[in-house]
Order: sequence, then structure tokens, then C-alpha cells
Amino acid sequence: MKSRVEDVTYMRRALSLAMRGTGYTSPNPMVGCVIARDGEILGEGYHRRCGAPHAEREALMSAVGGVAGATAYVTLEPCSHHGKTPPCAPALVEAGIGRCVVATVDPDPRVSGRGIEILRSAGVDVSVGVLEEECRWLNRGFIKGALAGLPWVTVKAAISLDGDMSLPDGKSKWITNGTSRVKAHLLRSESDAVMVGRGTVTADDPALTVRDVPGKSPIPVVIGGIDENRRVFLDDRCIIYTKRFAGLNGERVIPEKNGQVDLETVLRDLYGSGVRRLLVEGGGRIISSLLSDGLVDEVSLFVAPKIMGQGQTMTPGMILSSMEESMNLSLISCRGQDGDLWLEGVFPCSRDLLKR
Amino acid sequence: MKSRVEDVTYMRRALSLAMRGTGYTSPNPMVGCVIARDGEILGEGYHRRCGAPHAEREALMSAVGGVAGATAYVTLEPCSHHGKTPPCAPALVEAGIGRCVVATVDPDPRVSGRGIEILRSAGVDVSVGVLEEECRWLNRGFIKGALAGLPWVTVKAAISLDGDMSLPDGKSKWITNGTSRVKAHLLRSESDAVMVGRGTVTADDPALTVRDVPGKSPIPVVIGGIDENRRVFLDDRCIIYTKRFAGLNGERVIPEKNGQVDLETVLRDLYGSGVRRLLVEGGGRIISSLLSDGLVDEVSLFVAPKIMGQGQTMTPGMILSSMEESMNLSLISCRGQDGDLWLEGVFPCSRDLLKR
Repeated sequence: MKSRVEDVTYMRRALSLAMRGTGYTSPNPMVGCVIARDGEILGEGYHRRCGAPHAEREALMSAVGGVAGATAYVTLEPCSHHGKTPPCAPALVEAGIGRCVVATVDPDPRVSGRGIEILRSAGVDVSVGVLEEECRWLNRGFIKGALAGLPWVTVKAAISLDGDMSLPDGKSKWITNGTSRVKAHLLRSESDAVMVGRGTVTADDPALTVRDVPGKSPIPVVIGGIDENRRVFLDDRCIIYTKRFAGLNGERVIPEKNGQVDLETVLRDLYGSGVRRLLVEGGGRIISSLLSDGLVDEVSLFVAPKIMGQGQTMTPGMILSSMEESMNLSLISCRGQDGDLWLEGVFPCSRDLLKR
Repeated sequence: MKSRVEDVTYMRRALSLAMRGTGYTSPNPMVGCVIARDGEILGEGYHRRCGAPHAEREALMSAVGGVAGATAYVTLEPCSHHGKTPPCAPALVEAGIGRCVVATVDPDPRVSGRGIEILRSAGVDVSVGVLEEECRWLNRGFIKGALAGLPWVTVKAAISLDGDMSLPDGKSKWITNGTSRVKAHLLRSESDAVMVGRGTVTADDPALTVRDVPGKSPIPVVIGGIDENRRVFLDDRCIIYTKRFAGLNGERVIPEKNGQVDLETVLRDLYGSGVRRLLVEGGGRIISSLLSDGLVDEVSLFVAPKIMGQGQTMTPGMILSSMEESMNLSLISCRGQDGDLWLEGVFPCSRDLLKR
């Protein structure tokens, strides 16, 4: 679709409003809305957190005068159904909105297109597809959830130039620099939950909280039972997945697969608990299992330009028998971090999932 | 030094002329020279290959009219001593050059400054330091050689995102894409010699020649005796370093260190054979040994955005006992290669060696 310049401008504003909900809206999507008429913004808003009014409501409420004949820019198709709040499509119609520009349709096939239908049958002029890719990327967790019943899984690791996550004895403080570590907190703040294996909890005792940036700490998730006094358990939302009941706080027992906790079942359970974005911070065994099971969507690597020799790598125990089996990612960004590098890649099938 | 604009312009031209000698001048440096007067280039030239006239001679010979009062731009201090060709500093004086702009002095402490002295005592106005860093970087092999009696060592490797140079069984065709592999040939064309271990020769049978770009193939160097019919031996310049005499063509016996061929001795021997830039293409054991012995200056990594699981890494058997022992590089470039990444890093002590 060829967009008008002002459509892109206002949608970009709506997108940046949507981003303010980062970390707080799941299982709902992040949505922003701008209402404008004759080059003037009349109202704007975003979905602040699950349970709070939708973006369109916020925008309508913020408009002081009337919005009759104005254009509403929304990063996601306005909803058609009663949830925790009344539906937005009829609300826009009632307020007298003349045109509605939608970045993308609702990904849920059961409701997709219905909001637009309500608007159109009430005579509202609807355009779809402005900044669509950007808006779908922002809500990749929500979209993956709607289509697959699984959270969007991002593996984060800090590695040396020669591929080590730690020295042979497990030491890893610090591979990357302070700038990279702040960015790692940013990744946490974008996630609903953060997963580590029992080994990482034992060895590193990470808090897994968001400290170096503003934002909400994700729910800590530990794979494998552990009964020690560890920082991660200070968060009473912490979930521990075990194969056999061990009587731990926050424990959830999951059937095993090949002698391990079945990670796809774990992910479905997390989805059921409202998790749409999951960050995996290691160790190598959990990362290998998720990769082998095809459960990873995105890889976020902080690479320090140093040589650490023979150490613990990202993918121990994952044995490929031919080069054809290697798993290709598309690099989506490569940024310098004060001497380190931050590489972000996405698996093609995950990227295709986001296409409409 | 604050440079005049035209000084930088002409020196840049001289530098690009110098680069045309890439791969052909060792053990001599690459040098370019531009002679200009009143905004007009009167003559220019570069050192084409060891034994051929120096850049200053080439430039003087190419000038049709006289060069009296003109300025000569040279990427390296004009020589003061008779070598295979007569010295350049007196030749510039004789030709009537009025000013000489030199990028950097000769790194050899035994002759450094003498050429400039000859010019100055003949009344030539000499400026030193225009594009100095760039010109020293171009001749890093020559400078390292003059200061340390060792070639500049660049380790080149192609790795996956999870740090593998090959699968567990040694398969590695192909980790990186065609664009990256062309760049790897470019690295070979810049090198006087290319080193691999016996294992790499046995497993991959590389030709180690320059095919995908114009340029001279480096001298193949194999660490460890091997008596098989392999492509690398098609080049009769091939050098094989062994611990004990095995009667091979091109064999040189070197004392051992910890049961291995002593690599520092190998490097000194290569220096003695005129090698100023050495490219190391693996395998992991050779790379680990060179790194452990502090013999590597530069690392050139082609990173493919793929996951290969548990495989053969760059630095097997190199065990560090603390994070403080990790070897830090400064990243000097990071470039996209059609989806792959090309990272170039240099060790700080090697970088410092190039500073004047």
C-alpha cells in the first residue's frame, strides 16, 4: 500500500506510544492510538497494562473537543468483542471518527477483520497496512501466541570472539562490558518471563531482575528443581519446572521427554500463564535443547572482542551430522556497544510467521 | 601535526599508489610517491615489487618536464642507503625537489631519520606525519619486521554464530557465503605466506591460492610433516616445518617446544625468508598455539549467522584459569558480507607497535 506522508507520521507516533506499554501489557498486545484532524492531534493514548483501557479509549478520552470526522491511527485493528473492557471499533464509530488507519489486522484468525468490518459498515473509511511490519515486529509475542499458542522465544547470550559463554570452570564475569550488560537488562524489560537452567542458578546466582534500565522485571523461570537459597527465589512469582514433584515453592511438574523436562510443554504452560515474550539466558544445555526442538525465534548475542580459549559454548551436546542441518538465522541488526558487538538474528520461519 | 588540505589529498593519492604493490614488495615496504607543483601532478609512482625501482625513482622518471621546486609526497621516509637500488633521498635533492612531505619515518631504528636528514641538510623543507597512521597500518608487516624480526600474523577463521569452525567430524563446507570467501582470498593476496596445520591439509586439502581476486598467491606453509598428494604441494615454494627430518620437499626442521614445532622459531625463519605478512588459516590447534604464545597480531573473522551445535572451535586446548587472562582485541571493523559478518580485531600491543 502506498501511504500518505501524514499517515506514516501519525502512525509512527502511535507506534512510539504503543512501545510505552513494553513489558506491561501481556497477554494483551502493545497498542498506540493517535486521533488527528487537519494536521492537529486531538487525542492520543496507549494500552498501559493488561486490564487498563485500550489505546483507542485512552485516545478518545484524552480528546477535549469532539473528534467528529477525524482520523484515528491505531497500531492494531480495533477490537470487536467485549473483553475486560468494551469493544473499541463501535466506540470509534460512536465518537464520529471519519477515517481509521490501521497498521495491521488482529492476528487471531477467530476475530481478524471483524473490527474493520464494524468500522466499514458504519461508513468509516478504513486503510490497513501503514507501518505494518514495524507494528507486527513490536507485537511478535502477541502474534506468535495467537498463531501458535507459544511465546516468542529470544535466546540471549554473551560470548567471546571464540564462542565461549564461560571458562571451563563456569567463570564468566564479565565477558561483555557495562554497555552490553545494560542492553541485556533492556531485553529483560521487554520480556514477560526470563528462563534459566538450574545449573546457571547454582553457578551464577543471577537475580534476573531489571535494574539498569526502567521497566518491569520479568517472571523468573527455572528449569530443574533446586532447593537452595538463591536470589532468583526472592521473586515470589518464580516458576520452577521439574520432572518429579519436589515440594518447592512455585513448582510445576511437567512430563519428561528424553529424560529432560519437555520444553515445548513448558512453553505452552508459560503461554497459559500469559507469557508472550520469553527471554532465555542460558545455560548452554537449555539453549541447545530449545534450538534442537525448534522452539527459538530470535537470538540476541553480545560478542566481546576477546579470546577465552576452550570454554563452555552456547550449544553443547547439540550434534549435527551435516552442514545442511545447520540452522540459519537472518541477521536483523549488528550494533557496536562501546567495543562489544550486539548481534540480533531471527529464524526465517519465525520471521515468516510475522508476515501477514 | 595540522596538515594542509592539499598535503592530505596528494598523500592519499600516494597511499593508493602504494597499495598497488600489495603482495609483491616484501621484504620491502609498499611505498607510493606523488610529485606536484602549483596544483598539478608532475609525476607519480610506486614500488612495484622487491628489486624494482623505489617509488621516488618511479615518480621522478614519470615526470616529463623538470621538478625543480616541486613537492614530493612519499608514504615512507626516502631511503638513505644503497640497497638493490641507489638511495632516494639524494635523488630527490638532485632533482631539485623543494619540499618533501613524508607520511612516516623509516621504522628501522638503524636508519630512521637519516633520509630526512639528507633532505633537510640540502635545504629541502620536510614535513612528517601526514596520514601517518594509515601509512603505518598499510606497512604493518614491514614495521613489525623491522622492530621485532617477526612477520605480522593475521589469524583468519570462518565461524558460526555459536563459535564453530567445523562440525565434530571436521565438515565445514561451507560455513560462510561466497562473498565472505572472496574476501578471504583478498586476505591471501595481501599476505606473503599462508599457514595451516597438517590436520587442515589432510582434512580439507585446500589449495591456499588466490583465485577469486587478482593478486599473487602467498607461499604455502604447513606445520607438521605430511607425505600425501595434496593440492598445497603443487606450489613448489611450499614450506613444511617438522620436528624431525622426514625427507620431504620444502622441509625445514625446527626445534620443538612442549612436544610441538616451536612456532616462534617458525615465524623467525619465515621472516628470514622475506615474509612480512603471514595469514594463518587454521586449524584450531595452530591458532591456539599462536595465541597462547602471544604471536598473533590481528584476527579476521567471518561469522555466518547460523547455529552449528557442538563442533570444533577456534581455540581448542587453550585453557585459561581466570577471566583476567582472556586476551582482549580492539575491533577495528565490522562489515556486512551479504548476510555474513566480517570482524577485524587487533591486539592492543600490536596496535601500539605501529604507533610512532
